[in-house]
Amino acid sequence: MGGVGLRAGIYGGGGFAGAELVRLLAGHPEVGAMGVCSRGYAGRGISEVYPQLAVEGEYVEPEGIDASALDVAFVAYGHGESAVTVKELLDGGVGLVVDLSADFRLPEVEVYEEWYGEHPAPELLAEAHYGLPEVFGASGGPLIANPGCYPTAAILALAPVVRRLGAQIRSVTINALSGVSGAGAKPSVKTHFVTVNESVSPYGITGGSTSHRHTPEIEIMLRRVGETPEVTFVPHLLPISRGELETIVVELERAQDLPGAEEVLGWYAEDYASWKFVEAFSGPPHISHVANTNRARLSAAVDRRAGKLLLFSAVDNLLKGAAGAAVQNMNLALGFEEDLGLEHLI
Amino acid sequence: MGGVGLRAGIYGGGGFAGAELVRLLAGHPEVGAMGVCSRGYAGRGISEVYPQLAVEGEYVEPEGIDASALDVAFVAYGHGESAVTVKELLDGGVGLVVDLSADFRLPEVEVYEEWYGEHPAPELLAEAHYGLPEVFGASGGPLIANPGCYPTAAILALAPVVRRLGAQIRSVTINALSGVSGAGAKPSVKTHFVTVNESVSPYGITGGSTSHRHTPEIEIMLRRVGETPEVTFVPHLLPISRGELETIVVELERAQDLPGAEEVLGWYAEDYASWKFVEAFSGPPHISHVANTNRARLSAAVDRRAGKLLLFSAVDNLLKGAAGAAVQNMNLALGFEEDLGLEHLI
Amino acid sequence: MGGVGLRAGIYGGGGFAGAELVRLLAGHPEVGAMGVCSRGYAGRGISEVYPQLAVEGEYVEPEGIDASALDVAFVAYGHGESAVTVKELLDGGVGLVVDLSADFRLPEVEVYEEWYGEHPAPELLAEAHYGLPEVFGASGGPLIANPGCYPTAAILALAPVVRRLGAQIRSVTINALSGVSGAGAKPSVKTHFVTVNESVSPYGITGGSTSHRHTPEIEIMLRRVGETPEVTFVPHLLPISRGELETIVVELERAQDLPGAEEVLGWYAEDYASWKFVEAFSGPPHISHVANTNRARLSAAVDRRAGKLLLFSAVDNLLKGAAGAAVQNMNLALGFEEDLGLEHLI
Amino acid sequence: MGGVGLRAGIYGGGGFAGAELVRLLAGHPEVGAMGVCSRGYAGRGISEVYPQLAVEGEYVEPEGIDASALDVAFVAYGHGESAVTVKELLDGGVGLVVDLSADFRLPEVEVYEEWYGEHPAPELLAEAHYGLPEVFGASGGPLIANPGCYPTAAILALAPVVRRLGAQIRSVTINALSGVSGAGAKPSVKTHFVTVNESVSPYGITGGSTSHRHTPEIEIMLRRVGETPEVTFVPHLLPISRGELETIVVELERAQDLPGAEEVLGWYAEDYASWKFVEAFSGPPHISHVANTNRARLSAAVDRRAGKLLLFSAVDNLLKGAAGAAVQNMNLALGFEEDLGLEHLI
Repeated sequence: MGGVGLRAGIYGGGGFAGAELVRLLAGHPEVGAMGVCSRGYAGRGISEVYPQLAVEGEYVEPEGIDASALDVAFVAYGHGESAVTVKELLDGGVGLVVDLSADFRLPEVEVYEEWYGEHPAPELLAEAHYGLPEVFGASGGPLIANPGCYPTAAILALAPVVRRLGAQIRSVTINALSGVSGAGAKPSVKTHFVTVNESVSPYGITGGSTSHRHTPEIEIMLRRVGETPEVTFVPHLLPISRGELETIVVELERAQDLPGAEEVLGWYAEDYASWKFVEAFSGPPHISHVANTNRARLSAAVDRRAGKLLLFSAVDNLLKGAAGAAVQNMNLALGFEEDLGLEHLI
Repeated sequence: MGGVGLRAGIYGGGGFAGAELVRLLAGHPEVGAMGVCSRGYAGRGISEVYPQLAVEGEYVEPEGIDASALDVAFVAYGHGESAVTVKELLDGGVGLVVDLSADFRLPEVEVYEEWYGEHPAPELLAEAHYGLPEVFGASGGPLIANPGCYPTAAILALAPVVRRLGAQIRSVTINALSGVSGAGAKPSVKTHFVTVNESVSPYGITGGSTSHRHTPEIEIMLRRVGETPEVTFVPHLLPISRGELETIVVELERAQDLPGAEEVLGWYAEDYASWKFVEAFSGPPHISHVANTNRARLSAAVDRRAGKLLLFSAVDNLLKGAAGAAVQNMNLALGFEEDLGLEHLI
Repeated sequence: MGGVGLRAGIYGGGGFAGAELVRLLAGHPEVGAMGVCSRGYAGRGISEVYPQLAVEGEYVEPEGIDASALDVAFVAYGHGESAVTVKELLDGGVGLVVDLSADFRLPEVEVYEEWYGEHPAPELLAEAHYGLPEVFGASGGPLIANPGCYPTAAILALAPVVRRLGAQIRSVTINALSGVSGAGAKPSVKTHFVTVNESVSPYGITGGSTSHRHTPEIEIMLRRVGETPEVTFVPHLLPISRGELETIVVELERAQDLPGAEEVLGWYAEDYASWKFVEAFSGPPHISHVANTNRARLSAAVDRRAGKLLLFSAVDNLLKGAAGAAVQNMNLALGFEEDLGLEHLI
Repeated sequence: MGGVGLRAGIYGGGGFAGAELVRLLAGHPEVGAMGVCSRGYAGRGISEVYPQLAVEGEYVEPEGIDASALDVAFVAYGHGESAVTVKELLDGGVGLVVDLSADFRLPEVEVYEEWYGEHPAPELLAEAHYGLPEVFGASGGPLIANPGCYPTAAILALAPVVRRLGAQIRSVTINALSGVSGAGAKPSVKTHFVTVNESVSPYGITGGSTSHRHTPEIEIMLRRVGETPEVTFVPHLLPISRGELETIVVELERAQDLPGAEEVLGWYAEDYASWKFVEAFSGPPHISHVANTNRARLSAAVDRRAGKLLLFSAVDNLLKGAAGAAVQNMNLALGFEEDLGLEHLI
């Protein structure tokens, strides 16, 4: 690493979100140097592993990056492992750490441990800022928990509704559909082309019960905005590479209190008026509308017969759901425009 | 047409369901001759239009089939148009007519006209048998209304639940995902490869309101089995050619009355024990499990935290959701085994 | 195993070709019992591993099958490993062994060892019948080498041309396109959905040189039919699950000797007149025409300007290119109709 | 239109290439205003027709654009129609016109008329610059013929070879694979999702003869570089949205003159050293490497046994094969950096 501008480190750069981070930071006007580490790929060229990336440089071992010289670090390890590195970086004086794992998304250690096991740095939980700026603003501190892709889509669609209807909401069900990059770069039967292609399936169901770790993240963050019942979250795997669509069903205590679809679109327009990457959309959103962008596209419809409100939310899981949001969070924390280096992804 | 065995006519044989009918009837041991009509393709070879079909013969104009010589007819025109042909065939003495359109699925003319417009043969509505044999048995009369693909998946999953829990059910939401063949063979922007590929979108939403014509069919047929609230139905278009998955959320008046997933699987096993094409499945069903088969695969899970029952139902929209069911209905009506000519699709 | 009819064993039943064999043999009217072994999956239900298969039974260890009671065995291990099992089965008295590996396709041990390494049972090479019946007839002996999927498509298209034009042929280039099931069921970066989807790439190129093991198989078998120059074979991986298309360019010594496309179609019709699964087709073949069938579809075109003959050949790599051909070979060797149990795949 | 910077007009902006042009020009730092016309979509919002585009504005009738105020125009009509508009724009004083149709790619009117019919403005043919700058440099005049997507990939790979080996080349065969966007936005049976999905087919074959209009374009342009034999061109349609791969087989008069793969890569590196969007690549290129970029990725391999050179060339048909190249051509003609506004597509 060398040169002028910010010195950025990426830890766990070998996965799909890491590859997107590399692409975005390589084109970011304020980033002058970048170290990318991956235990699995150390010594191999980045563009050898991800040949669609037109970047120079090799993956290095984490020890190969002089953390003390970093201005900003992105950590994208698995949960548990990520927190250890985050703590080291903060202790080492890195001014801003954006963690893309689940390790700092749940503010209470008890909840974390129920879903993920022991937390290696529970003392940092209270310091982390949940990095969904359109709902929770920019971070003032050095640690940002980048939201999960599913919670990003869910909270953006639900927060304006919870904010206004809160206590009247009786039931929330999220039917989530995700492309395969959301399942990670590691080869498995689950991600084999022949398994996924020409099919769709629900997942995250164990012993006849739903249990996806994104559920508590969604509930806890929504409850910061307003009253929220227990949320049902049913993810499905789609035969596409990237992108996510959530169809969210909201029932109120009294069907006559249902807002109109236009009214909900108005709430979206109002709440997100000052933000560039979230937009109200009057028709049904398609994943193709947001793939390869950092946008979230939100829509609404009403089933008057059955008394339900339907919300639709589409994001690119690797951009607004991961790397794009991480760079946006960095921009805001460092006082840049939120879309610096992301202008072509609006 | 000539030869021994049943003489079958297919009206509206140029669509995707028609092509599947041709394939199935060409291999059916009791069918001796087949006339296939299509106004759009008359004069062209069937295997010229559908080159994957290894069958002889040409599409003909409907007038080119001597209806009085038919033992069985399948009608697959659009709604409205289908009923006219059905009436002519029955009046002409055809002993069995299986209609694949929506024209005879709704037993009350008022409901039909609300969703589809005027009905050309309302006097036949009461005579039609709704051809979902696993729930409503075989037909005793000459007219069978072949169910819609979405209602097939929905009713198979819901009927055993409605039968047992009926009045306790407060809310039913069907999140339906369908391959593109469900949208028909007619080229349009909606079915253009580039529109559909790498995307998913909800559809059937007009002016902010849900309104899919399959909703009344599902509600009316379920109410023959037990009490059923208004159903919310949200279809989505998938980037696959064939197959359908429905994720159905059922809420009860009292969460403590929720059955277990195993219990629901037991209901499925019990109710469908004597049928070959419907099966309870203990894991999450994938569309790939049922594509190119006549099977429906049903599963269940429970979200105890949020108090909801989840049902999953997968079918091939062109087979169990259309042509396969039509042949199964013919088999049952004529006293054959239900899987005659369909053995390789179990 | 028990019951009447043939007792069949499948060795290496855990792969994609094995799964197709299970499906086909389960529906074969002359097969009474089936033992399916897989070291990796022993103890697991077949329909648990391949949930689209509606069959009973578990995978067993090879030792769990009483080979002495088998009438026919199919072996689908990797090369080298397969020959060991084949030898044991023949030594143990199994009357018919169909080997789906490459172990018995190359009749000369020197050529085999150049491409694959040491051969464990070279003495059997001369006994093996190359099981492409439309070119080389039915097997009279107990050992059938089932052809590779690529050679199947290539030889079917080229044999009639080589037979007639032999010495005049100066150059043959095979541009081959295959679905991902041809790369096997083992998860890898190469078969990860995100790698394959929305892409195509050539493969089998090492250090700037082409070198696919199917090349010698194609050349050797064609030379049994007529003079054949060295063949260039360039395989590509397609983002589809199954099916293969080969576009074959043939140049003659003298362009004026080029036959017409119709003439070549006539050769196909003539040479394959008595066979059910190979057909001449006057338009360009699509993989979709043959997917999920046991058919090979052949076509031809001529580039008069540049003086080249183009041949097109499409097969389903798992059926006519593997399991379908294996059952067809069994049928012929045992004196059944070639399409017994395969009628629905014509 | 208004604002500072270049005033750009897009004629025929309703197709896929037009939509990419809108996206690129909307983000181009030197373009200040943009008028987009489409007869079919006039009056509709651009982002209504292409909802993935985050741009303001409506399609207008061509008459709705004040051509006299334009600094640059892009024309993307069908052949024949395009030339009429190009002539009007040049006559009206527009300083730079980039034509994306085939109308000005063939410099001789006789050849044009053989493949396309009468030419509406033959007097302009000699003035047009063939806009493949990496081979033919920047345009000095007001009219640029933007190359076809297939010729772009072919000429980039072949020019360095023809330049050096010219007279020794005996045979060139181009096996071309293209995504569906190359077939245009107009719905048809050919582009219906169900036709294309899970399949591949050759096309451009009529009455048993190959005849794709890109053939003369490739031959004529290569002959400007060196001796070139008649080229065989066989296109295939792929089940992907965008991107193209060409596998090109070159035979020399004497096999012993074959260069090595490394040598060819060296030629690429040398000839394209000063250009940003063309690169030599030592492994097999995948379409995914170049999709959504303006890059061409070139590679080579040798089949020593059969005496053939293989070239591989991958581009995104809508970017380097159409809209990206058009903007690159504009940049060069106006004296900007070739990648201005395209930096994120390297």
